[in-house]
Order: sequence, then C-alpha cells, then structure tokens
Amino acid sequence: MDASTLRLLVERVAAGQCTPDDAVRQLRRLPYADIGFARVDLQRDLRLGMPEAVYGPGKTPEHCAAVVEELLSGTDGPVLLTRADETQVKAASAVATALGVGPGTVSDSGTFATVAFRPAANRPGAVVVVTAGTADLPVATECTAVLSGLGFEPQLLTDCGVAGLHRLLAEVDTLAMADAVVVIAGMEGALASVVGGLTPAPVVAVPTSTGYGASLKGVTALLTMLSACSSGLTVVGIDNGYGAACAIARLLP
Amino acid sequence: MDASTLRLLVERVAAGQCTPDDAVRQLRRLPYADIGFARVDLQRDLRLGMPEAVYGPGKTPEHCAAVVEELLSGTDGPVLLTRADETQVKAASAVATALGVGPGTVSDSGTFATVAFRPAANRPGAVVVVTAGTADLPVATECTAVLSGLGFEPQLLTDCGVAGLHRLLAEVDTLAMADAVVVIAGMEGALASVVGGLTPAPVVAVPTSTGYGASLKGVTALLTMLSACSSGLTVVGIDNGYGAACAIARLLP
Amino acid sequence: MDASTLRLLVERVAAGQCTPDDAVRQLRRLPYADIGFARVDLQRDLRLGMPEAVYGPGKTPEHCAAVVEELLSGTDGPVLLTRADETQVKAASAVATALGVGPGTVSDSGTFATVAFRPAANRPGAVVVVTAGTADLPVATECTAVLSGLGFEPQLLTDCGVAGLHRLLAEVDTLAMADAVVVIAGMEGALASVVGGLTPAPVVAVPTSTGYGASLKGVTALLTMLSACSSGLTVVGIDNGYGAACAIARLLP
Amino acid sequence: MDASTLRLLVERVAAGQCTPDDAVRQLRRLPYADIGFARVDLQRDLRLGMPEAVYGPGKTPEHCAAVVEELLSGTDGPVLLTRADETQVKAASAVATALGVGPGTVSDSGTFATVAFRPAANRPGAVVVVTAGTADLPVATECTAVLSGLGFEPQLLTDCGVAGLHRLLAEVDTLAMADAVVVIAGMEGALASVVGGLTPAPVVAVPTSTGYGASLKGVTALLTMLSACSSGLTVVGIDNGYGAACAIARLLP
Amino acid sequence: MDASTLRLLVERVAAGQCTPDDAVRQLRRLPYADIGFARVDLQRDLRLGMPEAVYGPGKTPEHCAAVVEELLSGTDGPVLLTRADETQVKAASAVATALGVGPGTVSDSGTFATVAFRPAANRPGAVVVVTAGTADLPVATECTAVLSGLGFEPQLLTDCGVAGLHRLLAEVDTLAMADAVVVIAGMEGALASVVGGLTPAPVVAVPTSTGYGASLKGVTALLTMLSACSSGLTVVGIDNGYGAACAIARLLP
Amino acid sequence: MDASTLRLLVERVAAGQCTPDDAVRQLRRLPYADIGFARVDLQRDLRLGMPEAVYGPGKTPEHCAAVVEELLSGTDGPVLLTRADETQVKAASAVATALGVGPGTVSDSGTFATVAFRPAANRPGAVVVVTAGTADLPVATECTAVLSGLGFEPQLLTDCGVAGLHRLLAEVDTLAMADAVVVIAGMEGALASVVGGLTPAPVVAVPTSTGYGASLKGVTALLTMLSACSSGLTVVGIDNGYGAACAIARLLP
Amino acid sequence: MDASTLRLLVERVAAGQCTPDDAVRQLRRLPYADIGFARVDLQRDLRLGMPEAVYGPGKTPEHCAAVVEELLSGTDGPVLLTRADETQVKAASAVATALGVGPGTVSDSGTFATVAFRPAANRPGAVVVVTAGTADLPVATECTAVLSGLGFEPQLLTDCGVAGLHRLLAEVDTLAMADAVVVIAGMEGALASVVGGLTPAPVVAVPTSTGYGASLKGVTALLTMLSACSSGLTVVGIDNGYGAACAIARLLP
Amino acid sequence: MDASTLRLLVERVAAGQCTPDDAVRQLRRLPYADIGFARVDLQRDLRLGMPEAVYGPGKTPEHCAAVVEELLSGTDGPVLLTRADETQVKAASAVATALGVGPGTVSDSGTFATVAFRPAANRPGAVVVVTAGTADLPVATECTAVLSGLGFEPQLLTDCGVAGLHRLLAEVDTLAMADAVVVIAGMEGALASVVGGLTPAPVVAVPTSTGYGASLKGVTALLTMLSACSSGLTVVGIDNGYGAACAIARLLP
Repeated sequence: MDASTLRLLVERVAAGQCTPDDAVRQLRRLPYADIGFARVDLQRDLRLGMPEAVYGPGKTPEHCAAVVEELLSGTDGPVLLTRADETQVKAASAVATALGVGPGTVSDSGTFATVAFRPAANRPGAVVVVTAGTADLPVATECTAVLSGLGFEPQLLTDCGVAGLHRLLAEVDTLAMADAVVVIAGMEGALASVVGGLTPAPVVAVPTSTGYGASLKGVTALLTMLSACSSGLTVVGIDNGYGAACAIARLLP
Repeated sequence: MDASTLRLLVERVAAGQCTPDDAVRQLRRLPYADIGFARVDLQRDLRLGMPEAVYGPGKTPEHCAAVVEELLSGTDGPVLLTRADETQVKAASAVATALGVGPGTVSDSGTFATVAFRPAANRPGAVVVVTAGTADLPVATECTAVLSGLGFEPQLLTDCGVAGLHRLLAEVDTLAMADAVVVIAGMEGALASVVGGLTPAPVVAVPTSTGYGASLKGVTALLTMLSACSSGLTVVGIDNGYGAACAIARLLP
Repeated sequence: MDASTLRLLVERVAAGQCTPDDAVRQLRRLPYADIGFARVDLQRDLRLGMPEAVYGPGKTPEHCAAVVEELLSGTDGPVLLTRADETQVKAASAVATALGVGPGTVSDSGTFATVAFRPAANRPGAVVVVTAGTADLPVATECTAVLSGLGFEPQLLTDCGVAGLHRLLAEVDTLAMADAVVVIAGMEGALASVVGGLTPAPVVAVPTSTGYGASLKGVTALLTMLSACSSGLTVVGIDNGYGAACAIARLLP
Repeated sequence: MDASTLRLLVERVAAGQCTPDDAVRQLRRLPYADIGFARVDLQRDLRLGMPEAVYGPGKTPEHCAAVVEELLSGTDGPVLLTRADETQVKAASAVATALGVGPGTVSDSGTFATVAFRPAANRPGAVVVVTAGTADLPVATECTAVLSGLGFEPQLLTDCGVAGLHRLLAEVDTLAMADAVVVIAGMEGALASVVGGLTPAPVVAVPTSTGYGASLKGVTALLTMLSACSSGLTVVGIDNGYGAACAIARLLP
Repeated sequence: MDASTLRLLVERVAAGQCTPDDAVRQLRRLPYADIGFARVDLQRDLRLGMPEAVYGPGKTPEHCAAVVEELLSGTDGPVLLTRADETQVKAASAVATALGVGPGTVSDSGTFATVAFRPAANRPGAVVVVTAGTADLPVATECTAVLSGLGFEPQLLTDCGVAGLHRLLAEVDTLAMADAVVVIAGMEGALASVVGGLTPAPVVAVPTSTGYGASLKGVTALLTMLSACSSGLTVVGIDNGYGAACAIARLLP
Repeated sequence: MDASTLRLLVERVAAGQCTPDDAVRQLRRLPYADIGFARVDLQRDLRLGMPEAVYGPGKTPEHCAAVVEELLSGTDGPVLLTRADETQVKAASAVATALGVGPGTVSDSGTFATVAFRPAANRPGAVVVVTAGTADLPVATECTAVLSGLGFEPQLLTDCGVAGLHRLLAEVDTLAMADAVVVIAGMEGALASVVGGLTPAPVVAVPTSTGYGASLKGVTALLTMLSACSSGLTVVGIDNGYGAACAIARLLP
Repeated sequence: MDASTLRLLVERVAAGQCTPDDAVRQLRRLPYADIGFARVDLQRDLRLGMPEAVYGPGKTPEHCAAVVEELLSGTDGPVLLTRADETQVKAASAVATALGVGPGTVSDSGTFATVAFRPAANRPGAVVVVTAGTADLPVATECTAVLSGLGFEPQLLTDCGVAGLHRLLAEVDTLAMADAVVVIAGMEGALASVVGGLTPAPVVAVPTSTGYGASLKGVTALLTMLSACSSGLTVVGIDNGYGAACAIARLLP
Repeated sequence: MDASTLRLLVERVAAGQCTPDDAVRQLRRLPYADIGFARVDLQRDLRLGMPEAVYGPGKTPEHCAAVVEELLSGTDGPVLLTRADETQVKAASAVATALGVGPGTVSDSGTFATVAFRPAANRPGAVVVVTAGTADLPVATECTAVLSGLGFEPQLLTDCGVAGLHRLLAEVDTLAMADAVVVIAGMEGALASVVGGLTPAPVVAVPTSTGYGASLKGVTALLTMLSACSSGLTVVGIDNGYGAACAIARLLP
C-alpha cells in the first residue's frame, strides 16, 4: 500500500534478494497483529498520526488487556483505552505495569474511564475545550484525556452556555487566540454557532446526549451544529469526545 | 357554554318568556354561521380575544370571499385573511370594498399574502420581532401583518443571526425593554436561546424552514428552540408567523 | 453588556476614578461566580426576571449543594433545585439550613423532587394548570412547585382529558377567567387544542411522555400541540414543567 | 379457498362428474381474470363484501378502462375507480357507457376524482362523516363518494374543528345517534379524540395531510389519532378516505 | 350535554320546580366524581357503551383502589383495571371484595395484569382474535380479557404467522364466519393484510412491539397495517389490546 | 397447498377411497402440530429447505422445551433454538437429551445462546463471515452457529474494519474465492460496500447495533448497506445473524 | 489487487523482464480509464461477475455516451445504462451504433429507461419476478431489463398482492420451482413475507415507493421486508430493481 | 467585543479625547452596515479569517447586488456569492464591474452558481477534494470555487467510490501527502471512512443528497460519516460544499 515500501520490495526481487513467492507473502503480511479475536493495527500511528485506541464496550477485561499489551509491545507511541469500565481498566493497567509502562493515566468521567498509557511528547497547539453546562463534563473529560494522551494540554472552559452569554463573552479572547476549539454542548447545542462566530480557529463541535424531551438524546444538538449559521464549523458524532480529540490531532502539528 | 348567557336563557324560561322547546333550540343555535362548506365562528373574538382568521390554502377565491364577508357582516372587529394567493386576495378585497370596509391592508411575503380588514384599535405593548437572516423575512412579514391587524405596532429587527453576535448585541436594550419578543430563525435556530438569555420579556420562538441539508425544513430549528437552555421560551409551529402573533395577542393587554 | 453599568464605568474612567486597565478588567469580571466546575449566573434574576435554577441530573450531591450555596449567598431572590434525587435534596437542604435559609420546600413528583428555597413574594396572576390524566401529575407537580417558588399560587385542575369532555367543560369559567393557563397532557395531547378554544388567556402547552405505543414518549403530544388548530398556543419541551412555569413568569407581572 | 365451493368440487369428483385432473385444474383456475398487466379479482365482493376498486395513479387511461371493463363484465356489483385524473375518468366512463352501464357518478375532490359505476342498493346504516376544516373536504369527498357507491347515504358535517368547540357540540345528538362515524382531520387531529368521547358508535379516524410545519404532512394527525385517549377509536392511513369508507362497509350490515 | 336531561331540567325550571340558580348549578354538576387526584367518569358507559377503564401505570395502589371503588359504587356496569402490577391488583381486589363484588377476574399477560370486575352480560358477536406468534400473546391476553369483561367470548387463534401460510389457511372458515376479527402481530405485521383479504368482517389490527432490529418496537408493524393493501382494515396503537377490544365493543351490538 | 398431495387426495376421492367429508377434513389438517400456545410448522424444512427455528424471547422455558420436543419428534432434520437464555437452554437440552438427541451444541454470544440440535449433514459451500470489529462478534456467533447447524463450516474473519484497510485487503483472495459472504458491521457499516467491490460472490450484509451516538442502534449501518454503491448487495435486519445464515442456506446448494 | 496478476508482475521483475520503476508504474496503472470527469472501471466484470452500469441521473447526454463508449471499447461484456432519460438514451445509442454494437435494447419504465448493450450469453437459472400491483411495474421493468442484459430470461408475475391471496397461490408451483425470486412490492410490502414462506429459493425483496399516506415513499415496505417473519429473505434499497437483478447475478451460476 | 479596540476607546475616554456619551455610542456602532433588509458584517474576515458570504436563495437580484456592493466597498478582501441563480449573478456582477472589481469568477454547478469577487492571495496548503461519483460534482464545484476564492488551489479527484477500490488506492500517495482532505460522497458515504484510514491529514466529510431510496436525500451518508470507524473525521451539513471549504480555511494557515 505504501509506495516506498513497495518499491523497496520490488527492487529486492529485481536484485534477486527476495523470491517472487516471498514477495507475495510479504505483500500479504500487512502491518497488523492477528490475535484471534482481533487484528491489532500496529502502524496506525505511522499512517494516521495517532494510535489505534482500544474501545472498551463489548470486550472482556482479558480482551482489553490483550490488545493493550499487543499495542504496547508492537508500537512505541501512546496507547489509549476508551470507555472502559473498572474491571477493564484494572486488567489493562496490570498488563501495562507488567510491561514496565506503568498503570497509565486514568480519567474517570463518572460512567466510564479513559486510560492513556505512554502519553505522547508535548505538542504546542493551544486547544480550548468549551462546555455548555456541567452535564457535558463526562464528554469533555474523555476529550481532554485523549488530547492529553496525544500530547496536548487543553484548556477547559466549563459552563459557558448561551443562556448567560456574558459567561462566554468573558472568554472571548481565549477563544480568539486558540489554535483549535472543541465545543461540547447538549440540549439545543447553540453554543457551537456562537463560538463559531467569535474565533477564526477551527471549531470541532461535539453534540452531547444531555437534556430530555425534545433534545432527543443528542440528535437535536447534532442537527443544530450541522446547520450552524457560523461558517466552517465541523461536527463529530454524539458524545464523541474521543473523535473530537482525534480531529484536533489531525489538524494541529 | 357561556354562563351568563345560559343563566339569562334559563331565567327567561323560568319567567315564562321562553318555552322549554325554544330554550333547547336556542341552546343549540350556537354562535356560528353555517354557510354550507364552513361554519364561521362569529364569537371567536369575544371568546378568545382575537378574531377567526381565514386560512387561504385549499379554498377557492369564492370561498375566501364568502367567509370574509360573513365575518365582516357578523362581527365588528378585525378580520384576517392569511396565506392567500392573488386571486383570493382580489376576491376578498372586492367583497370587503362592497361592504364599505375597503380593500384591506395587503402584506405580501413573496409567496403569499396576509390581508387585514378593519384592523383593531392601537394596543400599547412594545412587541419586537427579531429575525436571524433575510431568508426569514416572509415569516416575519406574516407575523407583523397579523400583529398590525390586531392593533400592535411591532418593531422589526432583521438579520441578527448569531454568526455575527455584535449585530444582535447592538439591540440588547431594545430586547431588554420589550414587552414581548418574537424570534424568527431557521437553519439551527440558535438565535432564540441567545435572545432568551438577554430579555426578561416573554419570548415566542418561530422556527422557519429556511436552510438546507441538516436543517430538515425547519425541524432542526424547532427542536433547537424546544430544547433551548434559556428558561421559559415558548415555541410555535414551523413558519407559523400567524400563530406567534396570536400568542402575543393572548399575553399582552 | 448593560448600558447603564457600561456608561457608569466609562464615566468613572473619564473622571479618572478608574484606570483603563481596571476598566477592561472590570468589563471582564462579569456577574457570575466561577466555582471551578460551574459558572454560577448571579444576575439572571435581574436580567431575566427569574433566578438560575440548579438542574440536578449529572451533578454530584456536593456540586448541587455548592451551586445552591453560591446562589443563596450571591443573590437574594428565590433559588430552585430541579429534578433532584434524594441525596441531592439532602445535601442542598443541609447547606441552605446552614445559611439560615431553612431546608426549602420539597415537592416530590414520584421520580424526582423540586426544591424551592427562599420563595418569591406573592405575585397576583391567576395561573391555572390543567392536566389530562393522573399520569401527568409528576410534570404538573414540577410546574406548580416552580410557580410557587416564583411567587404564584397556581390552581391545579386534574384529569380533564377530552375523552370525557364534560369534566373539562365544568371548568370552563375557571379557564375563561385565568390570567394564564398551562396545559399538561400526554398521549395525543388534544386537551391543549380544546383549552385553547375556550380561553383568551395565554396558553402554554406541555407535552408529557405519558402513554405507550404511538405516543412515542411525548413526541406525538408535542407535534399535536405545535399543530393545534386553536390559534396562539405556545409549546415547551416534553415533560418540561419547569420551562412552562418560567414562561408564565415571563408573561405575568 | 372457499369451503363450500371446495366441497362441491370434491363431491363432483366423488360422483365421477369431474376427473381429478379437471378438479386440480379448476382449483388452480382461481376467480380472477388475468389480463396481462393485472389480475382482476372478480370475487372480491363475494369474499370481502365490497368490490375491488381500481386505483388510478400509475395506470394509463387504457389500463384503467380495461380493468373497469373486466370488473363490469365479470361481476354484477358496484365498481369503483379512485384517485383518477380526467383522462382516466373519460376512458373508464366511455367503456362503461359502451357496456350500457352509463358513465358512472363522478365526484371531483379538486385534485382527483372518484367514479362509482353501478352503485349498490341502499344500505340502512346512519353514517356521519365529520371534518375538522374546509381543507379536509377533498378526503371527505372521496370517502362519501365511496360510501355512496357502496349503498350508504352519508351525512357530512363540515368544519367542526375543536378550536370552536360549540360548532361540534351543536351536532352532539347527530353523533350520538349515528351507527358509524368517520372523523377526518388534519393539523393536530384532536377532533377524533373529542368525537370518540361523545358517541358510542364505531369511530374511524382519517388523518389528512392538511396543514404545514409540525403537522408533517399528516403524520402528526395520524399519531394523535392512534394515541387518542378516547377508547376504541380505530385509524386508517393518511388521506385514506377510501379506506375509511371500506371499513364502514365492513362493520355495518 | 345530553339533550333529554337538558330538556327535563329546563322543563323543571319552566314549571317552577327548580330555580334558575339551581339549574345552573346542576348544569355544572356533571356526571363525574371528583376524588381529588382524579375525576372519575361515571356515565362513560351510558355515553360510550363501555365503562371507563382504570389505567394502572403511574398510579399508586391506593389510587387504583380508590378509582375502582368509585366506579363500582357509582355505576352498575363492568369495571376494568388495565396494565396493573401485583400490588395494584391486590389493592383493587381488596376494595372490590369489601364491596361484595368479589376480587375480579385477573388475566396475567406476564408483564402486567388486566382485572375485570362485575363483567357484562353475554353479548352475541363471534369475535376472533388472531396472533402471528407466541410473542404476541401478552397483547392478545389483554385484548381477550377486556373483551370478556365487556361480555364477549372471543376465540383465540395463536401462532398463525404468514411464514407458514397453511397454519392460517386452516382457519379460513373461522375467519370468514366471524362477526369481527382482531389481528395482533409484531415484526412486519403482514398477517393483517392477509387476514383482511380473507374475511368480510371488520378487522381491527394491533401492531405489537415484538421483534428486534428493523421492527422498531412496533412502528414497522404499525406502518404496515396502516398501508395494508386489503381495503377497510383499521388500526389501533402499538400493543393496544385494550383499545382493540373497545373498538370491537363499539361495532358489535 | 402442495399440488401432488392435493392430486393424490382428489384421486382417492374419485376412487371412492375417501369421502368428500374426509377430504375436506384432511385438506384442513395441515402439516403443523397445534400444541395450544403454538402451531409448530413440521414441514418447513421440506417447504423452505431449512427448519423452523424456536425464537426464545417471550417464551417460558417450558414453552421452549415443548416446541423443541415437538420439532425433534415430528421432523428428522436439524432443530434450532435462538436467542435463548440460560434457563431456556437448560429446559430444551433436557428434553432433547431425554429424546436421545443429546443436549445440542450451545453457542454463547455473551447475551444469549444459539442451540443446534441434530445438525444437518455437511454442505459444500465456502461461506465467509467477515466482521468489522470485535463488538460485532455476538451477531457473528449467532450467524456461524446457525450456519453450522444447517451444515456449513463457515470461515470467520474478525476485525476487518475499513479504518485499517490493509487488514481487509490481506483477505482479498479469501473473499474472491468464497461461495457466499456475510458482512457483519455496526457503526457506519462501510465494510459491506468495500467487500461488495472485492468479490463476485453473493454478499449478505448484517447491520449491527454496535456503536453510539449517530449510529442510532444500527439504523445508520442499515441505511448504509441498503444504499451501498457496490451493486447487488442484499441486507437483512439489524443484528439478524440468524436471518443472514438462513439467506445463505437458501442460495447455496 | 489480484494475486495472480501481482505474482506475474513480480516474476517478470525477478526475471529482469520489467524494471522496478516500470513495475511500480504498472501497479499504479490500475484497471480503469480516467476520462476526466469519471474513472471507468474496466475490470468490474472480471472482479465482480457483472459489468459496471452507467447511472444516468446527473450526467449530461455527452457524459453518458462517453462512459458507454469507454465501456464498450474497453471491455467485451454487456454494458448497461440505467435510469436514463430520452436524450441520454439517444446519445448512448448513437455511440453504440457507431461502434457497431447497435442501439441496445431499451426498456422504458414510464419515467426512465434501461438500455442493455451487447447482452450476455444465456444463463440457465429460473428467475421469477413477482409484483404486488400494477404500480410496481416500473421497478419490475428495470429489474427484468437488467436481468435480461445479464443473460437471464426472467418470468414476470404481475399483480399478486396478498389482498387476493388466491392470485398468488395460483403461482405456488412456479415459486416453489424457481432458482431465485425477486419480490417487488410497495404499500405495506407483505407479499415478501408470504412468498418467503412458499419457496425454498433465495428471495430478494425490493420495496417500492408506491402508495401514499403511511407508506412513507417506500420506507414502510422496506421496514416490513427487513422484519419479515419468513427466514432468510434479503432486501435491497427502495425502488432498486437494478440492485435486485445484480444480487441475482451474484447468486446464480 | 475586541479587547484592543475596547482598550483604545477606553484610553481615549481616559485621555479626554472622547466623551463618555460618544464612547457608548461608538460601542454601539458595531462593525456592520445596516442596509435595511440586512446587516452586513464588515469585519467577519478580521474576526473569523474568512469573509461573509452572500447566500443567494430567497434574495432578490437587487438584494444580492446591494449586499455584494456593501461588502466590496466596506472591506478589501474576497467576497463570495453562493447558490446564486442567473439573474442574481448578473446583478451582482454588474455592481462589481461598476466598482472596478470586475465581474467575478463564476463557477456553475449546474443548478446554481458560486461567484468569487476579488479572490484572496494564494495560500500554500495542499487541499485535496475527493468525490465518490460524478453525481457529487455539483457539491464539489461549490467547494472548489469557495476554496479558490479563499486563496487555495484545490486538487480534485473525481469518481473514487469504494465499489472499485483500486480507483481510490491509485491516489493513496496524493491523500497521504495532503494538508487537508475534503471527501464528498452521497449514497452510503463509505468513502469518508476509507479515506480517513489512509491519510493523517484533517478530513472534512460532506454528505451529498445524491442517490435514491434508502439514501434518504443525504441523511444516510450524513449518519455514515458521523459514525465512521476511522477516528477524527469531522462532518458538515448535507450538500454543504461551502461549509467544507470554510472549515479548511479555518484549519490551514
């Protein structure tokens, strides 16, 4: 898939250093580790600039631990475990400790935890994470934990909902100076539109499932953010704090 | 249905001024005019404080004219024809002119017209109608036309969308001083939340079908407004400028 | 944001009573208390005519208590805690009692409680709250608790659903005389349309998630109320008894 | 399929009046006429108590005429052509006239026509069709045209929407005396609930696509009617005046 | 509301047997019992031909018992308690026993119970209740329990889904001979269409929330039934076995 | 229903070996066993080429066991119990063991089990089951368990999601050589489109309810698969691993 | 992508018959023709067993003609143009004629045409296409036209909807004998479930947008088919006659 | 709003160079031009790094021209007119020509045009715009036109849909080297997931309303993109090529 690797291989065949059969076999031996129930992507960091994350739900603690172990052994960058419950965290931390990596940094959002093993070196961008209300904090916690794991030091501005606009306007300089902004809001999600009109930075909006009634578990905020009258906002899925952090990692150096 | 009328009637029976049979018949002869294809509600103004409006779509010009005529003859308050096309306006205006009322005030929103015959006497409240963008003007036009017909002199603030928040903040005093505010916005409808946080006045939000893509013909703005984090906003149906005006008429003296 | 405060500040600068740097700092020091996880809006009552409410879900008991404390200390009007569970109520009541305010008035809806601390002085308007069935009582309880906290003495009419229209018609005078009406109905929500045709008062309709099958957890009642053929009804979100009470507070003196 | 026919056939085989091969062939030769593009159901009237109707949309005028012809020739009961446009009506009427049946009774709803050929003999039931507004008349027209074709003399009560409840209450005896009631309403469809509480008769509710905004082209009225708090209402599809008439034909003698 | 009662009252006034004030008071004293949290409709049986049912969910056992008591005392027809849990059944049965009515007939659907007190005298109609699968039995149980309480002896045909059409065709005569048919089906709900083509009787279709994936908790079956190509089917809400039984009670003598 | 059976019967009547009454009775005695709460379809295997499966949810353990018993006794092919919980498995296995069939093969997906009794003889087709992620394994487990019960030896390729395309491309020959492919994917379901472009085999796509936020419990993957730009994909319901296996059984010899 | 091609190439490099640079270039020169606005997939037939079809909508007549020309020149199998309007057909036919292929076989569905150029050699499978009503004919026409282009001779059974079940049962042998069945139905789509219970063949269900009201432009039929109680049905997108034909081509030899 | 402007003003007041009254007035005179029907945001470029665009739909040609004129006069950066029809383009071009700017660069997407006046100076980033099919070209055209107006030279890769994966893989280096990628896809939108797995660059996904049936006018592609298994994708609204271009402008220098 990768042109230079391909050329190298072909040159080795041409040079007689590799038989055609071996070449075909190598072309097949792609950069993942097949551990039976999973194919662990060991070059995602090289390819996408960020590591494969281990998504907890639906995995046994043993599965979580095994994939974390594989990633810690097979790569040398940060490794993330997301949406993990207590037993998953425990199992993964044990494995990481056994590998000499230590238990990882655990960020508990209340309903689940994000664990960052072997966090990346510091990255320079000024990332601001703004939430509309305190109920959006679990999603913000996931987002900042992932950002930290990826090397950023995000600044968190909580409870800036537009019902009291002055709470947001007090941070107008922070927003205008940011290199990237994540807006996390449930209910009607109007905060994204307003922030989008106050900063030239890229704005990634995260709808949350906060609220009741017509907020439709985040669908209302999602639609609001997709229809925002402020130009150039982009949106990730509902409650997807992890995805927003990855989007930031893609767009900042 | 009306206690005092009922008592009067019963007293007349008790006094022998009315036979039981007549009483029953009168109790049946309710305050509407049956003109075959429609039952014109002649006491809606007395009962609800605002007149029955004639809704144009689906009616022939003759039907429109006939109902307008019935209302002009059978009541003495304002009469409204809404969402009318050119031929409906013409037919209704002709009838009104023939009755000596004059052709009515026609407000053309581009796609349909609102006609106010015999507008109400001036009413004191300061009603502010705010729109997010120029595409919301047709709905605003219907709203202000109905408000005018009901005796108000609404102030229209156009193009105050939150993408350029300063355009709205420039009107912060106008909003804070208003007796009632109508917010008309499509796309993501965030304007309602922001206005709701800037004024203690009752705020009636009207989602419009402006926008494309994820704005879902007004459903997004509707959901946004229903989920607004500013407390005490109320909402009417999509593009329902008429309904918002009526809501104002209910809540102001 | 507030013109007179702004002018005062600018005049003090002009008079040399305040340095430009201080002025900018003061302009930044907006009227909220930043308590880390939340920005408590201390002038919401002044700005919007009703206090910031503390929304329970997603907050720890300590968070609830801390925000209640901040509001009780930083303002002198009523303070509301909504949708609180038992431990949140306990924590907040303890703090309020410690401040000499007393434990607040607790209204239990069955699934959650509304607590009103330091209720407002009596306000004159005749507010009628009508429910369609007994299953709508939890939402009605929230609504009347908030109305009471804001100074009203709402009259509650229960179980007036249109399947037995005479139960509603018996209250026709109460409705016609009201200064404002809140209609709370689930299932098909038809009660709002009928009430809207019986009273000239402002009508705020609250769809509830009562019912099953095609009632779609309140969406059916919501759509019904938004499409009501009675003019000038306004609607709040599903189960939003709190929002309806705030809407009443905006529109009555 | 029909037990008595089956027994007759089997008896004829037993009696040697029919060979097994013929019996199988007859069992296959089911009571429809295959005319290439359609299989005309010639015994629907016998089986279901009402004739197969020819649904216009998507058929050429020739197709309409051919199916009408087949039904007129192959059965002796009423034949209905529904939702037909002008050229379809013309073609079908020509064929019927050629067959000596006459052109049929054409009921024009404004957007399409219902044609009843060879209407059924009078049937005794008192069927009342109630509409909420004049915009529901096209659906009512289809319903009454089909009812007439099936032998009923429906009574039409127009414009009885609940915004002016007295217009409906004036007809309370008519409703209470009816053998069956069809309620046709768009917008929020609340009329069905109210009528359902006023009559012991079977009530068939037809939601219409009348209205705009949150009425969602009839979906709101549909949901309302399905969730009605009045017990025992039944509902047909949106704008399905034809289906409501057939439901009546099933339940009345 | 009732013409003859009205006339009687008016005649008594005319005859001086009743003062106008008393007449007005009596006109207000409508036929329900206000027991604080509920308005028990005591003449629903007279008005609609079937009794008010007590819907369990959301009511305390005491509330259930109180309403049942009120209905048993204030009327002399059958009384139904629906969707009740064990403690509600117990409380209501105790009250009924104390009144000498006996504990009622309890039909347990697995998740909730239907209780019929003082069932109606036998009614003649042949009612057939068909289910598509065993998972539809709880809804069928509610339906037959209510039918029994209303005086019918319904015949239940279980597990007749169209995947094995012969299971249904075996009952083709039963269906063709029925006076009314209730079809109860989840998943794709196709059974209703097929039954509708096999019987001339009125067919009331009940979608159930049986199934998973694309069955959308009954919405798919609901839409299927509303769109059925068999003419004259009518539909009630999802899982609404009670409503179907009431619809039958309306349409049979 | 079956022509040859029908002919045989008719011939026996013609030959006097069977009276017409008996013939009608036999025509009625269709090939299912009525065991009260269920009609067990004993010839489904003959008719459809695969056995009736016993769907666990909503059945008591006794019901499950009874239907399994009936199928094991009344047929001689494989019998499947799907989506069963522990007590259902136990009851059914006991019955099967008592019948000398043995306890069956139990495949546990984590949340429920599939049990195959008396599996079919080996069938030759090469069936490949591909999953996008480890969270799709429960659905894949049901699918492969049913395939095994029906005689196939499916090859399972796990964790081939398109985020690391090389993991899928490594299996490109396996896919190209398959006789049939089942693609099981949640979240956005893009794997189906990509696989569809890599193999000429029939592809059955199964959307899963894996994921959160905008994945809408499988609806997003469902819509994706239905709209796939690769031609000739077919789709079954959400999480319907059983249905996909049956579809394979229909299309392979 | 294709293992044998890859091996060949690598062997040629190993043999010195091809330089590494050339090999890389060839690996890049993938089997499509880039004609500026489109990348024409010239090996789709080899890869997927069926040709790339040219989808008309949104392409100019010139674009259609150019892609058709490219496919006719660059491949030697059948070429299909789907959903084309008159001018697109004309342009494509002219190009094909100029190439000596002839104008192709045009199947007009009423709203658009399918054109098959250079149809495939006859293929043996017995494909039955069943429609529920005449309104489903346009989709059936597309399906049979594509099947014909791919070498099949499909048998079309029209108007077999379940409202007159005997029309379908008359074809029960045809269905039972088929190698594959396509069921095309709109409205409630119940035909698919019934057919699925009558044949062991693979059944591909195509929902159509036929119908009105609750049929929701095909969504109802789609959901019905996905939830069908007959096991092993598979479904393609709404109105996707083309996709169904391709699915058949994948599963038959 | 802007801290430095604010400080300057306050300093001028402090210095006596500006009276408090003047200061307040200036604070009110915010940077927009009120031209009656619109408030033209003259500092959007300064504030957000990109100019206010003039959205054509719903504006008269005169309105378009007036706003374009205001922006050309009041700012000195690029000015964009989007989704304009022919008469709007003409009017705006005339005004721009009269101002000496020239007629602008018109990009016609087939259904509407994008006009860029006074395009920005070249910006360095390598922006790649990938489309799935030719039907996505109109949206791509809007996107590249806006990108060009903002100073970029986007590279357009057309027709790279995943049904023929090799067409995309041929561009794998282009994607891996890009500074930012816009993926434009309708139908099932799977292209975004695949591209997201091939490049470390920020990826902005644009769902288009291309396709029919289950593609639901872009909603399917939208949901797909929001649920993509490739981490860090962000999404804009359906058909919103303009929004995607603005998002790129925010994130590239």
